[in-house]
Amino acid sequence: MLNTDKKYVIGVDFGSDSVRSLVVDASTGEEIAGAVANYKRWAQGLYSDAAQNQFRHHPLDYLQGLEECIRGALTEVPAGVAENVIGIGVDTTGSTPAPVDEKGQVLALLPGFEENPNAMFILWKDHTAVREAGEINRLARTWGGVDYTKYEGGVYSSEWFWAKILHTLRQDERVRQAAYSWVEMCDWIPGILTGTTDPKILKRSRCAAGHKAMWHEEWGGLPSEKFLTRLDPLLSGLRDRLYTETYTSDVKAGDLTEEWAKKLGLLAGIAVAVGAFDAHMGAVGGGAQENTLFKIMGTSTCDVMVASKEALGDTLVAGICGQVDGSVIPGMIGLEAGQSAFGDVYAWFRDLLLWPLEALQAEAGMTDQMLQTVKSRVLAKLTEEASQVDPAATTVVALDWLNGRRTPYADQELKGALVGLTLGTDAPRVFRALVEATAFGSKAIMERFKEEGLSMDEVIAQGGIPGKNDFVMQVTADILGLPIKVVKSEQSVALGAAMFGAVAAGAFSDVKQAQDAMGSGYSRVYTPEAERSKYYQSLYEQYLQVGEVLEDTLRAL
Amino acid sequence: MLNTDKKYVIGVDFGSDSVRSLVVDASTGEEIAGAVANYKRWAQGLYSDAAQNQFRHHPLDYLQGLEECIRGALTEVPAGVAENVIGIGVDTTGSTPAPVDEKGQVLALLPGFEENPNAMFILWKDHTAVREAGEINRLARTWGGVDYTKYEGGVYSSEWFWAKILHTLRQDERVRQAAYSWVEMCDWIPGILTGTTDPKILKRSRCAAGHKAMWHEEWGGLPSEKFLTRLDPLLSGLRDRLYTETYTSDVKAGDLTEEWAKKLGLLAGIAVAVGAFDAHMGAVGGGAQENTLFKIMGTSTCDVMVASKEALGDTLVAGICGQVDGSVIPGMIGLEAGQSAFGDVYAWFRDLLLWPLEALQAEAGMTDQMLQTVKSRVLAKLTEEASQVDPAATTVVALDWLNGRRTPYADQELKGALVGLTLGTDAPRVFRALVEATAFGSKAIMERFKEEGLSMDEVIAQGGIPGKNDFVMQVTADILGLPIKVVKSEQSVALGAAMFGAVAAGAFSDVKQAQDAMGSGYSRVYTPEAERSKYYQSLYEQYLQVGEVLEDTLRAL
Repeated sequence: MLNTDKKYVIGVDFGSDSVRSLVVDASTGEEIAGAVANYKRWAQGLYSDAAQNQFRHHPLDYLQGLEECIRGALTEVPAGVAENVIGIGVDTTGSTPAPVDEKGQVLALLPGFEENPNAMFILWKDHTAVREAGEINRLARTWGGVDYTKYEGGVYSSEWFWAKILHTLRQDERVRQAAYSWVEMCDWIPGILTGTTDPKILKRSRCAAGHKAMWHEEWGGLPSEKFLTRLDPLLSGLRDRLYTETYTSDVKAGDLTEEWAKKLGLLAGIAVAVGAFDAHMGAVGGGAQENTLFKIMGTSTCDVMVASKEALGDTLVAGICGQVDGSVIPGMIGLEAGQSAFGDVYAWFRDLLLWPLEALQAEAGMTDQMLQTVKSRVLAKLTEEASQVDPAATTVVALDWLNGRRTPYADQELKGALVGLTLGTDAPRVFRALVEATAFGSKAIMERFKEEGLSMDEVIAQGGIPGKNDFVMQVTADILGLPIKVVKSEQSVALGAAMFGAVAAGAFSDVKQAQDAMGSGYSRVYTPEAERSKYYQSLYEQYLQVGEVLEDTLRAL
Repeated sequence: MLNTDKKYVIGVDFGSDSVRSLVVDASTGEEIAGAVANYKRWAQGLYSDAAQNQFRHHPLDYLQGLEECIRGALTEVPAGVAENVIGIGVDTTGSTPAPVDEKGQVLALLPGFEENPNAMFILWKDHTAVREAGEINRLARTWGGVDYTKYEGGVYSSEWFWAKILHTLRQDERVRQAAYSWVEMCDWIPGILTGTTDPKILKRSRCAAGHKAMWHEEWGGLPSEKFLTRLDPLLSGLRDRLYTETYTSDVKAGDLTEEWAKKLGLLAGIAVAVGAFDAHMGAVGGGAQENTLFKIMGTSTCDVMVASKEALGDTLVAGICGQVDGSVIPGMIGLEAGQSAFGDVYAWFRDLLLWPLEALQAEAGMTDQMLQTVKSRVLAKLTEEASQVDPAATTVVALDWLNGRRTPYADQELKGALVGLTLGTDAPRVFRALVEATAFGSKAIMERFKEEGLSMDEVIAQGGIPGKNDFVMQVTADILGLPIKVVKSEQSVALGAAMFGAVAAGAFSDVKQAQDAMGSGYSRVYTPEAERSKYYQSLYEQYLQVGEVLEDTLRAL
């Protein structure tokens, strides 16, 4: 049965709570096996403090999870597969940086730093560096030189590389003394697998560098020493201990070491691709190409586009999260945007409605089982009723900025709103307005791209929502006025990583070839209904108007 | 024990669902007995159609209820009381007009009209005449003569006299043929008791005429024949069959007839006062005087002020519901305003939160009893939690216009809003914002009066909310920055009617004397907390700002 000539690749997808492996056929993309490993220390709540928005990952969570999920997947595969794995691709969350010593060891792995959160990876959603991000933005605007934020949408975020580094250096003198350099998680994992963590040789991801570290060819790499020391003298000299060169993920980071080959049950010497961020590899796994908007839709969304250099010219797309040469598909410009809350908006409303049950459970004598039933069913029931509401017969317009607005024009001070309430406004009507608002938020991103001359024929969707809620997807298609294709593979992010593993191993000459051969196809398409699309165009104008008149007030609240 | 020299009066308060009598000591105001009679036909849902906003009362509901509630109260009183009743005062809802024949009989009491809703009283909240109200407003603004709406806040409502008459004349030819004239309910009940329903002698209430029928001395009474026939030739000649004179309620409408004395168990010949609307008599019963804002706070609010003619001068208070000489206290100007929704806003939020329980009751196996417990307890629980929320630590600002805005500047097209939502906004925070919004709505009315030069030292409150929710009352006091005194009597409206009965019977020379002698006093006072009041001043500015930027949008939704 087994074709021993077959070759396989492994995609490894590091998320916020767990890491997942996917073993796929390198010629067809067929998914052979996969496994998930949770981060053990993280699951215990160690090193983090949600009230302070501090979220840290211990490097051992990554290393142990990496071993566990690959070993786990390999126990499921037929004989002959493991020894025919030719490459590994890795994607991670980001910006998720950590301080390292001269050898590239993350400080938390060194004696005396084992329990110090500042010596660990600072997870993307850690917001402890709000002040430092503000300082970077002010300096970039006023220091008289180039605005280094210009390829990152013009606003530097507290979630990103330099803000987190500066905050840590200010906070923790011991870490400051011990930190020779800093790494992004998506650089470090391939470095570990290939024995190249030494900062002097470590291959840095173009995706991470360009989107989060203000790296750009235009100014010869990272921001100048002058800029950085002016930001804070504590940064003095660090630039030289970081990097100038960056790499796209079709490039090999190195060969799998003997040590890790043994740990994982693979052959030493196989290719490990340069890493990148999850959404970007996910876009590739889902079939991203020119004129396509790729959308990962879950609690929030990540929106990715690729544009040829010819199409984009010297356009700087304002108000998005960044545009970086090769961050998605090598040779093309990757553009990133996103909504700070999508499914989280629905979860917020669900929890609001559940308040009386929880507050009065004991008094009313309701069992945990009853609560659980209501909790697990309420969004489905709301969906069912909301889908019956004629959008023209309800007066509610919502703003979806309950977690601030990421794109267009990032502004974390913005907030949500429900406008046009009457005594007849019931829960399904509010829910419908929230669904429309999240879709309008998607449209606002799409329009931003269009206004800059990029065109879009279709949307490719992946994530928790597309598989779960037809109503949300249909409303989104109606509002965007474009068909939405749902990626068939439920692991298209790991599949994207596997594609890069395959390219780095030489199985394909470029990413497009890998996509054509290994893509999963689409499980279904949501086609916009013409009349509805037309109606929603006028409602979208109202959404924009409500946002416009309220913006200043929302910031001040 | 019984002092046979004591004199008594009866106040009769006709509400939307029932009529209540209150027998009180005419010298002290002590409440001796009372009874409530529900409207039987109304309780069965007859003649009304909520979906069409059609609400009608059969005159027999009033007549039978009147007899039942007075007889009921008299069964409770000690011997000797009934024969010492010297006067009756009557208040009713309004504008609640009905068509009558030449003798003043309401058409529904005549053969062939018994079941015709157009031959009955058209309840205040009936909104079938929206179109006609619009026509009146347009004509008043454009016909070239005086703007007859100017003492009624500048906007004629579909809830009022002329709109309802015109709508009925257009709708129902048989009623049109049979209707010799029209009466307000508060005119007709005293007319019935005193045998003076004949339109040529019936004493018309100044309160109803001035607030709802565009009656004013300035133009010699009702709007001119020219205006009315221009509005619609169907109105031709009606003005002459209505009235020119109007009366305040310190005036006797007449003497109780033998027939009704017998029906009620009272002496014939005792005084019956000219009627007026419930809120206006309620204000008197609650101790209304100059520099006091009287507020009936329930599902909606009715706000009443009195101003001396000297204090008001020739000021026309813009944006309120009307200002009428003698509509509250004879000799002073009565000013009326109100909020379209107050407690209804809280009820709306309660029902929103209850949606999952009702939608998923069967699925989750919850009993009716459980639902009932949650339903009856949720507002109390929300109140408890919301009172713990630091208003400075929440970002939500609400607009209270879920049922449109009555005052200031009536606009039924306006709607409610919740602005400043975050993923951390829970149900108690939303509830707190709604409570603040209803209080801000109260403040907006108060500010309207102040801007016209009227001053206010305190608020007197009555109705369902003051007795029920300390938190709402305290927030309202903090936001108004004035002490709120809660009327001790829970029947201060009927008590006010009784005071007018006493004055009409000659027991007092004027209303002020009756108030001093018969007033119930106050059960408690909510004193504004200085720091909170100051803080709320800035939040009130935000409320105004949100309203201002959203007004146009809300109208268009």
